[in-house]
Amino acid sequence: MAAYAYTVYYGTFIHLPRLPEQPATPTSPPKYKLSINHGALWVSRPDGKIAGVDWEVKDENGLGELIERMGWRVEGEGEGVGELVKIVRSREQRNGFFFPGFIDTHIHAPQYPNSGIFGSSTLLDWLETYTFPLESSFGNKENPSEPPQSAHTAYNRVVSRTLSHGTTCAAYFATIHVPATNLLATVCHTKGQRALVGRVCMDNHALCPAYYRDESTASSLAATRASIAHIRALDPSSTLIRPIITPRFAPSCTPAALSQLGALAASTSPPTPIQTHISENLNEISLVAELFPTAKSYADVYDSAGLLTPHTILAHAVHLSADERALVAARGSAVAHCPASNSAIGSGLCPVRELLDEGITVGLGTDVSGGWSPSILETVRQACLISRLVRFSNTSAAAAGPEEGGKGTGREKISVEEGLYLATRGGARVVGLQDVIGGFGVGMYWDAQMVEIGEPVDTGGDADNDGNRGGYASNVDIFGWESWEEKIAKLVWNGDDRNVKAVWVAGRLVHGESC
Amino acid sequence: MAAYAYTVYYGTFIHLPRLPEQPATPTSPPKYKLSINHGALWVSRPDGKIAGVDWEVKDENGLGELIERMGWRVEGEGEGVGELVKIVRSREQRNGFFFPGFIDTHIHAPQYPNSGIFGSSTLLDWLETYTFPLESSFGNKENPSEPPQSAHTAYNRVVSRTLSHGTTCAAYFATIHVPATNLLATVCHTKGQRALVGRVCMDNHALCPAYYRDESTASSLAATRASIAHIRALDPSSTLIRPIITPRFAPSCTPAALSQLGALAASTSPPTPIQTHISENLNEISLVAELFPTAKSYADVYDSAGLLTPHTILAHAVHLSADERALVAARGSAVAHCPASNSAIGSGLCPVRELLDEGITVGLGTDVSGGWSPSILETVRQACLISRLVRFSNTSAAAAGPEEGGKGTGREKISVEEGLYLATRGGARVVGLQDVIGGFGVGMYWDAQMVEIGEPVDTGGDADNDGNRGGYASNVDIFGWESWEEKIAKLVWNGDDRNVKAVWVAGRLVHGESC
Repeated sequence: MAAYAYTVYYGTFIHLPRLPEQPATPTSPPKYKLSINHGALWVSRPDGKIAGVDWEVKDENGLGELIERMGWRVEGEGEGVGELVKIVRSREQRNGFFFPGFIDTHIHAPQYPNSGIFGSSTLLDWLETYTFPLESSFGNKENPSEPPQSAHTAYNRVVSRTLSHGTTCAAYFATIHVPATNLLATVCHTKGQRALVGRVCMDNHALCPAYYRDESTASSLAATRASIAHIRALDPSSTLIRPIITPRFAPSCTPAALSQLGALAASTSPPTPIQTHISENLNEISLVAELFPTAKSYADVYDSAGLLTPHTILAHAVHLSADERALVAARGSAVAHCPASNSAIGSGLCPVRELLDEGITVGLGTDVSGGWSPSILETVRQACLISRLVRFSNTSAAAAGPEEGGKGTGREKISVEEGLYLATRGGARVVGLQDVIGGFGVGMYWDAQMVEIGEPVDTGGDADNDGNRGGYASNVDIFGWESWEEKIAKLVWNGDDRNVKAVWVAGRLVHGESC
Repeated sequence: MAAYAYTVYYGTFIHLPRLPEQPATPTSPPKYKLSINHGALWVSRPDGKIAGVDWEVKDENGLGELIERMGWRVEGEGEGVGELVKIVRSREQRNGFFFPGFIDTHIHAPQYPNSGIFGSSTLLDWLETYTFPLESSFGNKENPSEPPQSAHTAYNRVVSRTLSHGTTCAAYFATIHVPATNLLATVCHTKGQRALVGRVCMDNHALCPAYYRDESTASSLAATRASIAHIRALDPSSTLIRPIITPRFAPSCTPAALSQLGALAASTSPPTPIQTHISENLNEISLVAELFPTAKSYADVYDSAGLLTPHTILAHAVHLSADERALVAARGSAVAHCPASNSAIGSGLCPVRELLDEGITVGLGTDVSGGWSPSILETVRQACLISRLVRFSNTSAAAAGPEEGGKGTGREKISVEEGLYLATRGGARVVGLQDVIGGFGVGMYWDAQMVEIGEPVDTGGDADNDGNRGGYASNVDIFGWESWEEKIAKLVWNGDDRNVKAVWVAGRLVHGESC
């Protein structure tokens, strides 16, 4: 294969411009608007970063002029002397475009085989019935230093699946097992998915089942350190894979472990990121109050342990009090909003607008397998839906507004554009990579997906009349009159992995085919 | 093509057994359980009805013995003298099975091109902004007696799409236009989808836009009669296509029209079915109270007009009062639960368990395009999700129970099996066809889908290592240890039209390929 210097992407590019980080107010709401450009963008092969853009390139002639102006020669075309480039085009006739890769800010890789299996459980019985038994199987009793074959199968599958849905970066919870956690990091590295990978800490013997827990606080810390060391050795520059300190949630950890994990995070430079759960379920909140009687709140449990940092990802945050929201905002910690999971296991309706209005960074998480789907696009849908129901919720302050029967103001609603912002820009901030992923800009990584919504429906007649029953070009029906904004709305509501034709991370093709 | 007498379906058959029609009580909750049989079932070609079943047929030898015992000869095999049969097998290795077709009890066919386009609107502004402009385009100003080409495109597409998602029967709202309504009936008839097709009545000039309304009460009734006559002529036996009287909803009709439509429904034998909307949105309910100041309630508006009958489908019923629920139950009217729509346009969380507990028949509706998806499987998912959130709703009596922080009892939750029951048996009762569709039984129509969940993940290694990136056999990952109940749960949560390999209505293949 020729060593080309750049890949030139040509076609339509859609992303969400980055908004200022200060919180919005009801009188100056943020404007989430698609940025739609047609032209060329080129990615440097050695580092996978965007090296330049030219939105003046209107057609193939313009593309040829750009190539000539840059002194490039195109792979397979002629004998020029300049740097070799490869061209990848989005297909206009299929409503194709390039979009930033999705960022999944909360996903439990080992739970993937249980996707869709949760019955009518809620958090605490769901953990006991479905989750802990599956996670415990990632240990290998016969050969504790090697992950079992089932871990290879599950981790290969979940990484391939999430890539196929356009997820270019994920913050993964693994299990308590160091070999399997390290395997997950290796699978991400091999397949080329950007990832934060965390060994789960569970040293509270009073609450974790005997068959699935750390032996002691000391062993929990030692295992965490071992996994961090492995991941740093796997990717010394932390370009693709990074470790993340992962106390499961307050009830599964002793106060000593929480504090020591907080200190461990602070001991590195830059500080090691942290991920955990908070205020997902009302019974869980009661349990935390019982277990930590001197804490002012659930959030205070983490804050007292040094775990609320600007590098902390808090999953769920469905039922935070106003004081807790203020504390999270003050510490600069971020929230992984997991609406699919919150609905599936009946945790509640997270008032995302309140979090955003108070200056908290929010991204989206699939929370597989509390959430049933590996798709961030599905998570965008669920975030939009839940935001439209928050005003009916009896646990939300948003219920106080004037709209429709005295409830809600309308501001609580998340638009398709805002959902996509949370899935890209928001997620990038949550994982601390807002300067290099989540959008298209010179110097940012080419973490991207090529999406095709599909060709317009043939208005000349229905395929069925020719005996071609249901053999549509796409799963999304475009009738030809839609604006780009409407086409994107159709994609968000009825699109799926079929629409994701290719995925790149740092310029490397990691799913699908280059065109 | 040889004229065979029967199609013999061989493989796994899953359906939900029909439950008694009396309401359940908290102390005797209904048991929704999958019935899973392996064997053979045969469908008579002339009438498309199930002529016999044999669950003792365990393998191909057993199938051969059945054929011999019945004196059949198999198409393409030998020269026997008995009746010719064709054999269709579900593929066990792909976790294939036969399942009853889905019944969509509420769908607006003309709105299909707007699927996914609704912004942040709620019912009344959604109608003005998105829906009425699209529906009005189904009239043809140049040639009022012919539907426009766009109606052909939209109706062919929506019927093909819903068939491809396994919908074998649908209760359609059309528009106010007789030619386009008749076209919809013809498209359903041609493509072979069982359907109730209704011309929409909108004669209230104070509330319907000038560009989209019936000219008068008299013309509204005359147009309704004309469309009914066309549909009866199209299918005189009403085997496949039936007319349904369709006042859009109380605010769009004058009291005179409502009463005359009620009388029209009662004037035929058997009575003509009726469909309309009720209590979808809080502002809509206020509007009805304003418009009908002497009515006791929204439900009473319909009851006073003779529109609450045992053949009436009421879409939504999100916010019915206890008195209204009792009235609906007493009249034997049914509810089309449309959870996707209710979330998408922020109508609220329908307390389905309350409806069921009080003896009201409930089926599922996609409510395209208030709902974004033509899929009843998606609607099952949304029904399950919403039922898990109802206990957080401030408008639901279910919020009073003791579970988790004083809210809900757990009984409000709809299981995957119950969701599938509502999508098949429930829907069959809603459309008045519970004796002939919704399940598998001798004498019932073969309205069915062949579903394949997919082959189990190869535990020997991941395809990606062979360069086969993401090219999975299925969109649902089966790991090999799942029970049928767990496989069905995985299908419900992550399945889609890719899993629907073939669809039959009254024995006729209407989508996909016979195997």
